[in-house]
Amino acid sequence: MNKILFFKKKKYKASDIFTKSKINKDFIIDNVKSLQQAGPKDISFLDHIRYKEDAGNTKAGICITTDRLVNLLPNKTQKIIVKSVLFEMAKLLKKIYPDSDIDYPDLSVKKPSKKKYRSVKFGNNVLVGKNVKIGINSKVGSNTIIEQNVVIGNDCVIGSGVIIKNSILGNRVIIQDDCKIGQKGFGFIPLKSKNFKFPHVGKVLIMDDVEISSGCTIDRGSIDDTIIGNNTYLDNQVHVAHNVKIGSNCMIAGQVGIAGSSKIGNQVSIGGQAGISGHLSIGNNVKIGGGSGVVKNVDNNEVVMGYPAVPLKEFLKKNERDRNR
Amino acid sequence: MNKILFFKKKKYKASDIFTKSKINKDFIIDNVKSLQQAGPKDISFLDHIRYKEDAGNTKAGICITTDRLVNLLPNKTQKIIVKSVLFEMAKLLKKIYPDSDIDYPDLSVKKPSKKKYRSVKFGNNVLVGKNVKIGINSKVGSNTIIEQNVVIGNDCVIGSGVIIKNSILGNRVIIQDDCKIGQKGFGFIPLKSKNFKFPHVGKVLIMDDVEISSGCTIDRGSIDDTIIGNNTYLDNQVHVAHNVKIGSNCMIAGQVGIAGSSKIGNQVSIGGQAGISGHLSIGNNVKIGGGSGVVKNVDNNEVVMGYPAVPLKEFLKKNERDRNR
Amino acid sequence: MNKILFFKKKKYKASDIFTKSKINKDFIIDNVKSLQQAGPKDISFLDHIRYKEDAGNTKAGICITTDRLVNLLPNKTQKIIVKSVLFEMAKLLKKIYPDSDIDYPDLSVKKPSKKKYRSVKFGNNVLVGKNVKIGINSKVGSNTIIEQNVVIGNDCVIGSGVIIKNSILGNRVIIQDDCKIGQKGFGFIPLKSKNFKFPHVGKVLIMDDVEISSGCTIDRGSIDDTIIGNNTYLDNQVHVAHNVKIGSNCMIAGQVGIAGSSKIGNQVSIGGQAGISGHLSIGNNVKIGGGSGVVKNVDNNEVVMGYPAVPLKEFLKKNERDRNR
Repeated sequence: MNKILFFKKKKYKASDIFTKSKINKDFIIDNVKSLQQAGPKDISFLDHIRYKEDAGNTKAGICITTDRLVNLLPNKTQKIIVKSVLFEMAKLLKKIYPDSDIDYPDLSVKKPSKKKYRSVKFGNNVLVGKNVKIGINSKVGSNTIIEQNVVIGNDCVIGSGVIIKNSILGNRVIIQDDCKIGQKGFGFIPLKSKNFKFPHVGKVLIMDDVEISSGCTIDRGSIDDTIIGNNTYLDNQVHVAHNVKIGSNCMIAGQVGIAGSSKIGNQVSIGGQAGISGHLSIGNNVKIGGGSGVVKNVDNNEVVMGYPAVPLKEFLKKNERDRNR
Repeated sequence: MNKILFFKKKKYKASDIFTKSKINKDFIIDNVKSLQQAGPKDISFLDHIRYKEDAGNTKAGICITTDRLVNLLPNKTQKIIVKSVLFEMAKLLKKIYPDSDIDYPDLSVKKPSKKKYRSVKFGNNVLVGKNVKIGINSKVGSNTIIEQNVVIGNDCVIGSGVIIKNSILGNRVIIQDDCKIGQKGFGFIPLKSKNFKFPHVGKVLIMDDVEISSGCTIDRGSIDDTIIGNNTYLDNQVHVAHNVKIGSNCMIAGQVGIAGSSKIGNQVSIGGQAGISGHLSIGNNVKIGGGSGVVKNVDNNEVVMGYPAVPLKEFLKKNERDRNR
Repeated sequence: MNKILFFKKKKYKASDIFTKSKINKDFIIDNVKSLQQAGPKDISFLDHIRYKEDAGNTKAGICITTDRLVNLLPNKTQKIIVKSVLFEMAKLLKKIYPDSDIDYPDLSVKKPSKKKYRSVKFGNNVLVGKNVKIGINSKVGSNTIIEQNVVIGNDCVIGSGVIIKNSILGNRVIIQDDCKIGQKGFGFIPLKSKNFKFPHVGKVLIMDDVEISSGCTIDRGSIDDTIIGNNTYLDNQVHVAHNVKIGSNCMIAGQVGIAGSSKIGNQVSIGGQAGISGHLSIGNNVKIGGGSGVVKNVDNNEVVMGYPAVPLKEFLKKNERDRNR
């Protein structure tokens, strides 16, 4: 699932990019991956102590990190020590995947050939890019744009005015009108004169039986993928940021926002307009009340509410107290 | 106003669907309606004690309900007793209206004929379905899609990139760019392997002189209609869920969300980003502060604010107290 | 920057509009401007004591105001005293700029000529209005609409399904898919039978190196302009209301809403789903936490959070207290 299909990759020797580091001169970078997924030919990165365990177990050939974190890495991993891990990563990715930091629209999209998509029903002015795959019995509404290399499964219904790029959809997926799926996420290195845009080489994976209502935005991953699990339903105007993983059988009500890299378990329900901060882990069977602002991890089976969100009992007690004073 | 024009209806005998119930074998289902609107040839449903009064007065020929609620219904109404009223309703609707649980895009939309719409001005690439009516002197922007059977009144201005389906619009209605109106709402019976999608056979009714700003989503009703009253204005990115009724002369600021089946009175103003929970009743002349989360009914003329929303005085007193401690 | 290019202007004598006021019979209205920007041939308006200083220094030829505020104006400015300044302004603007109170879609948009835009790359079904300027090396995605007189700089990337009107964009601006930029804001005089729509004759100015993510809405100004400063980045689904000014180097996360006429300084970061009320002034280097509701001005360098937003320390102390009771 983690093969990167959507961006052209250039070959570099690591020593040609990191000219000041003492690394093996013959190391040709195969890819850039997370600590967990990197292999001996890949470069990875370590920028926070919370990834200590992944660091210890990584199989990455090279890892970019800081002076303070370098000792967490195994001996056989070559180290590149820098001041800003994210900035070096961004520059590295920009070299290897030069087109992944700006969403250049796919200018090759055109009317789909009837021959190629024999069992697919298309509305008017549907525009499809090169090498797009659409499964049997799927339908695509008018004015929808499906950019190159996107894969859509069988029996899917894609509404009108939808834009899909850098994404792989399972079977029986429903995407209602005007959703935007697979665009670059909100990531950059702030620089005073001109920010450095963080390349986004991940994709969006949408599993079987997912339903996404009108006007949602699902950003693709930066290095990892953004994932929406089986049979999960999203209401209108939901925003899912880069690298978010949502489990199976979740219900996410209207106007919810989930910030970057957060992980939502299975059977989670999230009430309307709730917000989940970035880099959090929400367990299975969690219920999050409407309008809540979740700023901490939530354990399995918890019911939370409030801004900031606390266990429901605590929230109700506090409100009771406030009213009685 | 409650005639269902948008979905094909199949004829069934009630006894062929509810084979285990003791109901009149000749009862042919005319329609599925709310307790208030159902007549002797219709099936209705009762799933909560809050509809006690409607239950006592209903003229429905048959009503689906539970063991605990069945005694609230009049003698002449035949009863079908089930465990999950909503699930049985969903299955019944799916049989009678087989195409109402998924928004299959209207693949028949095409460029409007100049003859048929003589006094209407169209932009480029406007796509209009079968049997669409558009009143005199209306304008429709480019890339807008109007699906079959939609009715638009006189002197309307529909922006660009708009998608309208299953809706009836009055006169002098303004819809700004990129609104999505009439799509299926967020309703389903959660099932572990694959949710059962709740059919949506209602429509959206938009009365005269309404203005809806860019990027709003207005879902159609499930059984009832979604209604926006005369001279009500919505700002950008507002989300109105299925079955919501909004009265006349309301002002609804940006990014507000109104959850399913809530009823908003006349002359109500709602500040930006406020959320209204489902199944609530908000009176006339109510003011709801920006960012509020309304979770209870609000009486006429009240001013409320906060999360959860309380009367303004209480909100201000609480904040004063918090700051002085 | 304040020349109005987008709306047709009619010439009127002030005395023909304000027939009951004792003003110079030969005064031909050149334009309607804010107190700060109006010159001796312009009409301005004063409707609140907060503009006291601007009133004292104005060079406006005529000013519309109330009985109570009239003494704040200089001697040489002619005065028109009314009950509702805003309503009189709205009626005046509607006379001078008759097409600025409703967003009539630009029906002249059509496929761009290759000759005119030699170095621009267009997707499919791009629609461009009269007199649009697009700088060298810019790209425009499919189904995007650029209405008449819009100016786009060099090296810009405009996504697919975007709608731009009444706007001027600098160089290297990135607009991701489905943004709506330059539409009329949410302003009207509430009247029981039919609201009076406030004309919007301002524009949107987007400076160099700005990035605006998917599904944002940026309304144009009513009299003033809406401005987004250099190198400022907006995440998905952000709503920027009319007349808002955002400084340089800001980071505005997903689903933020900024209400009308508020002014945001430079280097400001705003967390996801935060809301800023109207007519506020937020200083430089301010940090606003996610989900906050800002209802008061914020000084330079402050960090605020909460609903309503308070300094971060206060917010944390309050939460600590709430949890320990």
